[in-house]
This record gives sequence, structure tokens and C-alpha cells, in this order.
Amino acid sequence: MTDFSEWFHNILEEAEIIDTRYPIKGMHVWLPQGFKIRKYTLKILKEILDEDHEEVLFPLLIPENELAKEAIHVKGFETEVYWVTHGGLTELNEKLALRPTSETAMYPMFSLWVRSHTDLPMKFYQVVNTFRYETRHTRPLIRVREITTFEEAHTAHASREDAAKQVENAVEIYKTFFNILGIPYVVTKRPEWDKFPGADYTMAFDTLLPDGKTLQIATVHNLGQTFAKTFDITYETAEGAHEYVYQTCYGLSDRVIASVIGIHGDEAGLFLPPEIAPYQVVIVPIIFKKGSEEVMEFCRNLEKTLKSKGIRVHFDDRDIRAGKKYYEWEMRGVPLRIDVGPRDIANKKVVTVRRDEKEKEIVDFKPENIAEDVKSILDDVTRNMGDKSWKSFNNEVRSVETLEEASEKISKYNGIISFGWCGDEACGKELEEKINVDILGIQGEIEDGNVCINCGKPAKHVALIAKTY
Amino acid sequence: MTDFSEWFHNILEEAEIIDTRYPIKGMHVWLPQGFKIRKYTLKILKEILDEDHEEVLFPLLIPENELAKEAIHVKGFETEVYWVTHGGLTELNEKLALRPTSETAMYPMFSLWVRSHTDLPMKFYQVVNTFRYETRHTRPLIRVREITTFEEAHTAHASREDAAKQVENAVEIYKTFFNILGIPYVVTKRPEWDKFPGADYTMAFDTLLPDGKTLQIATVHNLGQTFAKTFDITYETAEGAHEYVYQTCYGLSDRVIASVIGIHGDEAGLFLPPEIAPYQVVIVPIIFKKGSEEVMEFCRNLEKTLKSKGIRVHFDDRDIRAGKKYYEWEMRGVPLRIDVGPRDIANKKVVTVRRDEKEKEIVDFKPENIAEDVKSILDDVTRNMGDKSWKSFNNEVRSVETLEEASEKISKYNGIISFGWCGDEACGKELEEKINVDILGIQGEIEDGNVCINCGKPAKHVALIAKTY
Repeated sequence: MTDFSEWFHNILEEAEIIDTRYPIKGMHVWLPQGFKIRKYTLKILKEILDEDHEEVLFPLLIPENELAKEAIHVKGFETEVYWVTHGGLTELNEKLALRPTSETAMYPMFSLWVRSHTDLPMKFYQVVNTFRYETRHTRPLIRVREITTFEEAHTAHASREDAAKQVENAVEIYKTFFNILGIPYVVTKRPEWDKFPGADYTMAFDTLLPDGKTLQIATVHNLGQTFAKTFDITYETAEGAHEYVYQTCYGLSDRVIASVIGIHGDEAGLFLPPEIAPYQVVIVPIIFKKGSEEVMEFCRNLEKTLKSKGIRVHFDDRDIRAGKKYYEWEMRGVPLRIDVGPRDIANKKVVTVRRDEKEKEIVDFKPENIAEDVKSILDDVTRNMGDKSWKSFNNEVRSVETLEEASEKISKYNGIISFGWCGDEACGKELEEKINVDILGIQGEIEDGNVCINCGKPAKHVALIAKTY
Repeated sequence: MTDFSEWFHNILEEAEIIDTRYPIKGMHVWLPQGFKIRKYTLKILKEILDEDHEEVLFPLLIPENELAKEAIHVKGFETEVYWVTHGGLTELNEKLALRPTSETAMYPMFSLWVRSHTDLPMKFYQVVNTFRYETRHTRPLIRVREITTFEEAHTAHASREDAAKQVENAVEIYKTFFNILGIPYVVTKRPEWDKFPGADYTMAFDTLLPDGKTLQIATVHNLGQTFAKTFDITYETAEGAHEYVYQTCYGLSDRVIASVIGIHGDEAGLFLPPEIAPYQVVIVPIIFKKGSEEVMEFCRNLEKTLKSKGIRVHFDDRDIRAGKKYYEWEMRGVPLRIDVGPRDIANKKVVTVRRDEKEKEIVDFKPENIAEDVKSILDDVTRNMGDKSWKSFNNEVRSVETLEEASEKISKYNGIISFGWCGDEACGKELEEKINVDILGIQGEIEDGNVCINCGKPAKHVALIAKTY
């Protein structure tokens, strides 16, 4: 991939995922193929969340007065909020914000909902569109003004420990989700100056795009009691006292789809994990003059058999060259192709071609086993995608001992640099400026004896830096 | 139901469907139970549409310049559109409308997408939130400012005939959908003055709420070439000429859920069609001191068995009186309850109580058959709900010969009045005013010899009037 940015833009168009020609900058249209990828991706996420969260849906608009209640929070968003000021021909009494995120929409209601310790924990989530008046260069699915797919979970707990535990649970939830999609990541605790406005601390997932820059793909925030105090969310303890709840929130967005596309794609185009591929299998008939009706009939039956077992399969019976079909389905990222010719039928075989290996394999065809055989190939494709992306990701995480080394590696490869850091804000910001990177955050504590690569004081943390999106 | 309005408001709260306390008038929160009902309702609708439509997702915001392009259309919405005028601290160069509906968002893109007659027909739909600055009295799910569930389909065709045919197809689609939910309806062609702004003609579905007022629950519009000309949507014919497409659009909203709730509910609360009930079956253990662990174990197994067959079942093992459980699940509309006591287990029986009949029935319990037995009861509940609601609906449609009779029946019963009408706009509006009703529309042509009940001229149409929401 010589130029990732160009490749990404082209594949969104060629594979009919997103149309970027909508007449507002940073707002795009999900095309049918893209919409299906989005749908199956959300299905996975919701199945995980539904295990112990309840799905809800809050209004898009937030009264100015609610948004402004939590001062630190509103400060963090003030340059990014879209404002509705008129209804019809009338000026509204109070401006309404398009949600940039939903804390200030939800928490006034939480204040009504939470009554007793028996109501806790409360775990809700919603999947909605959110808006950011983005002044930087926009990029479909990565930096947009309408985030069309924003999953945000919000929880309330009786104790600080429970909230901290929920942060860990949420990290596990997103790990599970990204693992299914074969998206590799690092999890760090964001530095103080980069945490969510209003949070005690923020844990974040970053992945790497093929250009070696990191992309933040999920965040988990421990909100402590900040919002509880602002929005008066209290509960009655077993002893009859009234206490503020402890809260967490966590979310992810369209960027998941950008990552899947960027990380698994190659020169031939998309490569979709079977779980989210609109078609998991495409059947291509290899037709000669003789026996063509027999082949078509065989393919139709094969399609029916696979479909009946829940496999998303498409029989491509168009009257065009097989080579053109191969090219197209490869570009669209279909994980498995099955070719069927008259000789294969005679030999009770079919030919399978995996999107990852691109080599033909001859498979024994037994009608009663074929669906299981296909599923087992698809599972192997999924595993292989994850193995490959993690291997390549791990190669791009480099440990350094000095600032010079960090600077050199970043200039040469981009990627993620791991180093010893004292943890001071002033030092961190200086370091960021010196070698023109961002500190992603800290990954863990460090043993005694190491020194900070910037200031030379004792290093407290293993920290990560990268060029970021 | 003495006061429908009060009943409706109470049940939304008690059954935890919608929270109306959100701090913006006409904008509400979907609670977990309500969200599930909405989810299963959308699942049915999408399965029908997915047969020959592609799902897409367009941006929420529409530039003023696009919205204003189609003059008749914008005139129809000008008092209802919310406007975004600021991004962050900056005034926008161009005002952005929150979509009241998506013609003017979609059709500029259609103009890019439609190229050749081979692209046609094109059939897209999306499910989104839309906004109307409603100045009338708002009512949850019925008249709101954020319509959270707006399904809108948009199609393009090569000929006037194809578009007219699609209108008929869409009417069939919605009939299928409403029939699954047991929502009775009349379909009429709306009078000229009540058609969709920009449409050639509008077909509409109206149902009746328990207070005898009609509620519009779906509309289907033949747009002719109006928008095609405004947005320059043309295709190349087989002969190489360039022609404007013919378009249709059709949609429905949250009002479907309002109708399900209003039509099937009763004094005991909700009654949900099994297809959309969050729990289709609730199992209640009848526990005495002796044998209680045996009962609990039996119930747990029963729950597992039913779940494994795809039935949404809940085992209510709370330590409260069975009577309280009955009351609660009845109020929440669960279509089927299964009671299990120690004697039942000994006799290899279970007791079923349908939400519609409320009488106990003894059912033979065979583990291998129980799921099928339950499904067959649920199917019968569904049928019975439809039969009952249609019967009651048909009783409320009354045919009259004179204006006095119409006026009398409306005053006495509300409901729908069928009558002979000349079809003239002036006469229609006079009639509406005289007896304080709305003309829903025309249902069909009329035989010779009848006269219009208002003006006495020859009646051309069978028309319907009602008090409307």
C-alpha cells in the first residue's frame, strides 16, 4: 500500500461503502454494502453488551442549560458543538445542542432513575449519531462531523471500587469485540491532559493504520462522582444514608469500521472478517459449452444448502468472464470463493479460494457436510486474519532507551514507541514537542533503576508514543 | 378504558416504555422495555423491506440550499424545520436543517447514482430520527418533535406505470406489516389539499385508537417527476435518450408502536403481540413449603428448553407473592404465562394462562413437545388479537346517507364514517367545517345514482371522514 490515504478513499468508493459526495463537509452516506458491514459489526457488539447492559435511546438534542451544567465538560466541547437556534420561523427560547456525546442528556434522567442501592449497578447503552464541528481536515469514518455510529455505555455504581471494576470490565468487553474483528490494539491510561473532560481517568484503545499512525478506537472513562454531583445522582444506602453514585462511560464509533478496512485490506482491495462480510461466500460457475446447465443447477443447490445453514452466500450467475468476477469479489473482500466446473462435479469436488491465501484448494464435496466444511474454513480465515494483523502490529511496537532512538525510529517507521517516562506533565509535553509525537498514555509501572528518556529523572511508567490520527 | 389519553400516558410510564420527563417538550427517552418492543417491531419491518430494498443511511443535516430547491416541498415544511446555525462559537456560512424527512437529502445523491435504465428500479430505505417543530399539543409516540423511529423508503423508476405499481407494492408491504401486528386500518387516497408536499398523490393508512379518533400510521406517495426535475435525476433509455425518473416514497413512524399499545391494551395494561413482546412467555413457580426446590428446578429446565427453541422466556423466581407477579406481567403485556406447582409436575401437566383469555388451561407436559405447544399457543394468540381488533375496528366504520346522519354518528361514537362525495375541494372543506371532522380520503369509486351528502351533486367517490389525531 503505497499511499494509505489514497487507497482508503478509493476502496470506500470502489467497494461502495461510503459516498463522500454529500453536500456537507464531513458528513457522508452509508451505501448498501457499507451499511451491511456496519449492521453485522453492530450485531456483534450488541450481543456482547446485551449480556449485562440495557439498550435505551435518548433524544438527540440537549438544552444549553443542561450541557452547561458541568463546567469542565462543556469547556471540553464548546468549540465543537452544533447549535439549533430556530424552530420553523421562530427563534427558540433556549438553544439546543446536537449531542457531541450524551452525558448531559442522560444524567438528568439518571438522577430521576436511581433511588436505592438496589437499583445499582445500572448499565445502559445506546447506539446513536453524534456531532462534532470539526475544524481539522475530515476523513470518512475517521474524522467526521456526523459520527453516524456512536456506541456509548453509561453505568452507575454504589462504590468507587465498583466503578473501577467496571472500567476493567469495559476494557475486556472491547478486547473481546476487537479480537473477533482481528483488530490489534494497545490499551493505555491517557495522560491527565488528554483525558475525557470531566473524567477521573481515561483508558483508551489505539490501533495502527497501515501508514504507521495510531487511531484511537475506543475509550473507557472512570467519571468518579463529578457528574453525580453536578446532576445530583444519589442513592439511598442500606443504612438509609444518601450518597452520590460513581459513574463510568465508554464508547466507540465508525472508526472500528475504518480500522477493519485499513488493517485487513491489501492491494487487491477489501478483506472482511467473515463475521461482518455481507457475503461470506461467493459461488462462481466455471462454464464451458458442454454441461453448463448441470453446473448452474449444482451451484443453485449449493447456494441453497449453505443459505439454509445460515451462511451468507451469493451465487454469481452473471454472464461475464469468471476472471472479472474473481477480481470484483476479491476487491469487495469476500472471505471465501467456491468455483464449480463440470469436471469438479464429476469428481465430487469443489474448488475453494480463500481471500487470504489466494490459492486453490480442492475440497471433497458431500452435500451433508459442505456447510460445516465451509464454516470451518471461515473460522480458520478469521483466526488467520487476527494472527496476521497482531503479528504485524507487534512488529510495529518498538522499545527504546533514549530520546534520540525514539526520534529516529519514529522518523523511520512511525509505529508505536515504548519508553520509560517520569510521568510529569511538563516533561511529557516537552517530549511531545521535541520529537513531534503524541503520548498515547501509560501502559504500566516500571522497575526501579530506569530513567525517563526525556528528563533523566527516575522513570515511573512504561509509556507509549506515536504519530496519531 | 374510560379516558384513553390518561390510560396511554400511564401505561407508557408503568410498563417502562417511554420516559416523558426529558427536559425538552415533545422529545422523550426510550426505556429498556420500550426499546425492545421497538427493536422487534423494526425487525419485522426490515425483514419485509429487505426482500427487495437496500438499507442505507443518509446524514441528518440538510443544507438550506438543497431543502429550498423544491418550492412546494419546502413550503409544506417551513414552519416545522429546526435550523442549526452555529458550529462551536462560529456562525455557519449556510444554515443546516434537521431533516423533517429525507427527500432533499437523498435526491441530490440519486442524481449522481442513477445513470442508465439498467439501474432502475432503485429501492432504498432508511430508519432514522426526524424532527418537526410541532406547535400543537405533543403526545408521546403520536405527536412528537423528535420522531425517533422514522422508516422512509425512496424508489426511482423508468416509467409512470412502474411508479404507480410501486405505490401498490408499498401499500401491500404495509398491509403485511400491520397484519402481523394486528393493527386494523383503512387505506385511502388523501384529498388534494392533504397530500404530501410535492407528491402527485398520497395513499394513507389510518387506524382507530380507543377514543374513536383516527391516527395516520403510514403514507405512500407517488412523486411523479416533480423531484426528478428539481434534482435532475435522469437516466439513459435503451435507445440512448435521457429521461427523468419517476419516484415514490413511503414511510411510517413510532405511531405504529402507539397503535399496538392503544389497540391491544386493556384495563389490565399492555397486551403485546408475541412477535414484538420482550418476553413472550413468563414462568411463575407456585411454591408451597414442600417440594419447592423441585418446582424451581423444573422451571429452570423449562426456561432452558423454551429458550433453546428461540422463545423469549423469563423465569420469574423472585420471592414475592404469585399474585403480584401475575399482575405485573399482565400489565407488561406478556402474551403467555405458565404456572408450575408441585402437583402439576407430579401429573406431568403445566398450567397456561393466555393474556387474551385469562383462563387457566391444563396442558400435558412433554419436554420434547413443549416448545412447539407454546409456539402454537402464541400463534393462536396472534391470530386472536388480529381477529378481535379487526372486528372492533369494522364495527366503528359506519356508512351514512345524509350529512345529518354523519354528524350524529360522529358526535355519538366518533369512529369512521363512509359516505358518497362529489370530490370537489370546496365542498369537501365546507363539509369538514360543518360537522367538524377531517376527510381521510377516498376509498373507491361509486355507482351512478348516488349524491354527495353535502352538496347534492352526483357522488363520484366513497369517502371517509373521522375525528383525527
